[in-house]
Amino acid sequence: MSLELPPVADLHDAGLAARLQHRLDGKTKPVGALGRLEALALRLGCILGTESPSLRFPQMLVCAADHGLAARGVSAYPSDVTWQMVENFLAGGAAVSVLARQHGLSLTVADCGVRHDFAPCDGLVNLKIAHGTADASVGPAMDRAQCEAGIANGMALVRGLPGNAVLLGEMGIGNSSAASMLLARLAQQDLDTCIGAGTGLDAVGLARKRRVLAEVMTRHWEATQPLAALAAFGGFEIATLVGVVLQAAQERRVVVIDGFIASAAVLVAQALRPHAVQRCVAAHVSAEPGHRLLLDRLGLQPLLALDLRLGEGSGAALAWPLLESACRVLREMASFESAGVSGQKEE
Amino acid sequence: MSLELPPVADLHDAGLAARLQHRLDGKTKPVGALGRLEALALRLGCILGTESPSLRFPQMLVCAADHGLAARGVSAYPSDVTWQMVENFLAGGAAVSVLARQHGLSLTVADCGVRHDFAPCDGLVNLKIAHGTADASVGPAMDRAQCEAGIANGMALVRGLPGNAVLLGEMGIGNSSAASMLLARLAQQDLDTCIGAGTGLDAVGLARKRRVLAEVMTRHWEATQPLAALAAFGGFEIATLVGVVLQAAQERRVVVIDGFIASAAVLVAQALRPHAVQRCVAAHVSAEPGHRLLLDRLGLQPLLALDLRLGEGSGAALAWPLLESACRVLREMASFESAGVSGQKEE
Repeated sequence: MSLELPPVADLHDAGLAARLQHRLDGKTKPVGALGRLEALALRLGCILGTESPSLRFPQMLVCAADHGLAARGVSAYPSDVTWQMVENFLAGGAAVSVLARQHGLSLTVADCGVRHDFAPCDGLVNLKIAHGTADASVGPAMDRAQCEAGIANGMALVRGLPGNAVLLGEMGIGNSSAASMLLARLAQQDLDTCIGAGTGLDAVGLARKRRVLAEVMTRHWEATQPLAALAAFGGFEIATLVGVVLQAAQERRVVVIDGFIASAAVLVAQALRPHAVQRCVAAHVSAEPGHRLLLDRLGLQPLLALDLRLGEGSGAALAWPLLESACRVLREMASFESAGVSGQKEE
Repeated sequence: MSLELPPVADLHDAGLAARLQHRLDGKTKPVGALGRLEALALRLGCILGTESPSLRFPQMLVCAADHGLAARGVSAYPSDVTWQMVENFLAGGAAVSVLARQHGLSLTVADCGVRHDFAPCDGLVNLKIAHGTADASVGPAMDRAQCEAGIANGMALVRGLPGNAVLLGEMGIGNSSAASMLLARLAQQDLDTCIGAGTGLDAVGLARKRRVLAEVMTRHWEATQPLAALAAFGGFEIATLVGVVLQAAQERRVVVIDGFIASAAVLVAQALRPHAVQRCVAAHVSAEPGHRLLLDRLGLQPLLALDLRLGEGSGAALAWPLLESACRVLREMASFESAGVSGQKEE
């Protein structure tokens, strides 16, 4: 292949992990009393390579694109909602806009292949590959060059942004279908367990989605390798997110995963560079049934379980303050020694 | 009794709830796609009596006191840790100090009956009833006058503070024992299911805690009414929190419950004024096994499940941004109409 994927090193550093654990255990609280926040602090310290981690200039990246397969009725919403929501992100009225503002996250919206021409606008980056992918039930959603261009775009996007953390957001009517097929194929899971109602299909719509995706999977039975599967099922926004994850991983930035679709991009990235997932934090587990399966496959435990099923990066934004808290516990909490607090009794 | 408890009205307002739900359903997202954040937004709107809720001057109240029963070895830590941690809260080095700072929560530490004399200090309120409760295995932890004084103190504390939200924190070596006994007695639960390791007892310590609490429960078999049980088992900080909850409920402030001990105070408040719990939001479910049982009894679903077992208000502080987010969704998100976004397809 022509695309050069970045190397992603193994972060394993037993010495640093032991020093972080020792530091956590010395804080003024019973050992382990901050539960999973302590595990998160340890992970963030290991990703950033320091006992005193600090998150700087967090970047919410919302990658948007359309899916040719949407014409087959796999979503409860028409494709036009993709570009309309992009306008809404930029105007500040979408959930992710509101939450990014609340938490001081820089919001970048990338047009990775929306079926619409946008006027140039602050906060919008043009990474358009085409006006939507091809219909995956007819042929591959992307050709190999488009797929690689998407990944390269995501890598370049991260290189151009400051900070040490990225949050993965996405928008694309039909993209839960792509995510379901990527999960089924790359994790060798039964397709039906990977499919859910997406944005809100009714029973009839869900049955149709199951039929269509089974047909697409059969058509692309030979697409078993990560990039072949990504090209076959789409979409442009997922390919771009794969590039975002790989570049962020190579640079040792913290990657905050949102929902099912963002997680599917991480699954592809992990298949290409297994250590990439070491940099990832799972913000939440969504109401989409395949998401729990996907996170288990990645070996990640979600921070939140609030039955979200919106995407956009909304769950990543909601979990963000927990990452901040974890870092502050390491940086700002007193130790038993420094605060003059007595330890546990000897029995 | 001499103490006048405040009236706590039924907040039920079907019209307001319907208007809030309609407003949520019109936001630019599939209906229900923000999951439990939407239920939270609805609840906050109902508590604050508005379709456009806004949280103002949130108050973290950490109520601290000592327990005579601690002398019986029911905690992994010595009683001195209570006053040492109060100093740590005030110096800014404890978990709750760090998290309150992160989220802009005003932090007030109330000495409700710590076995120590503190020098006057900014952020410390003297509500001391005695230097720790009496040993509940010998007689009641508090007499009736002390119990009522604690509740009155909590009510006065809230009346003197601005804002429309309080977060419940506590500190008191031995207070998970009091909470376990209050749960067992007021909710008629088997004592053993209400007892856990607290700050970190080992198996021997836990077995001792079980024996001691069973003995105390038997001694106070006649203490079945809420105030009698509270007086029998303690403690001063829990009584003060009961007053905090009742006053906040009467004033229609949002009450953010932290862990097992704060929840036990809400259980007592609910027994006295059943509608008080309508104002409450459960921040998290802790690793203490009785906590899930207690929240079920209150009919509350926790926002976080991070295996926390620290108290102090740390879990309430960690969940706080979710309450802010819920309000912002109602206030700041665009509607389908205002943003010009298409709705669901007609089948």
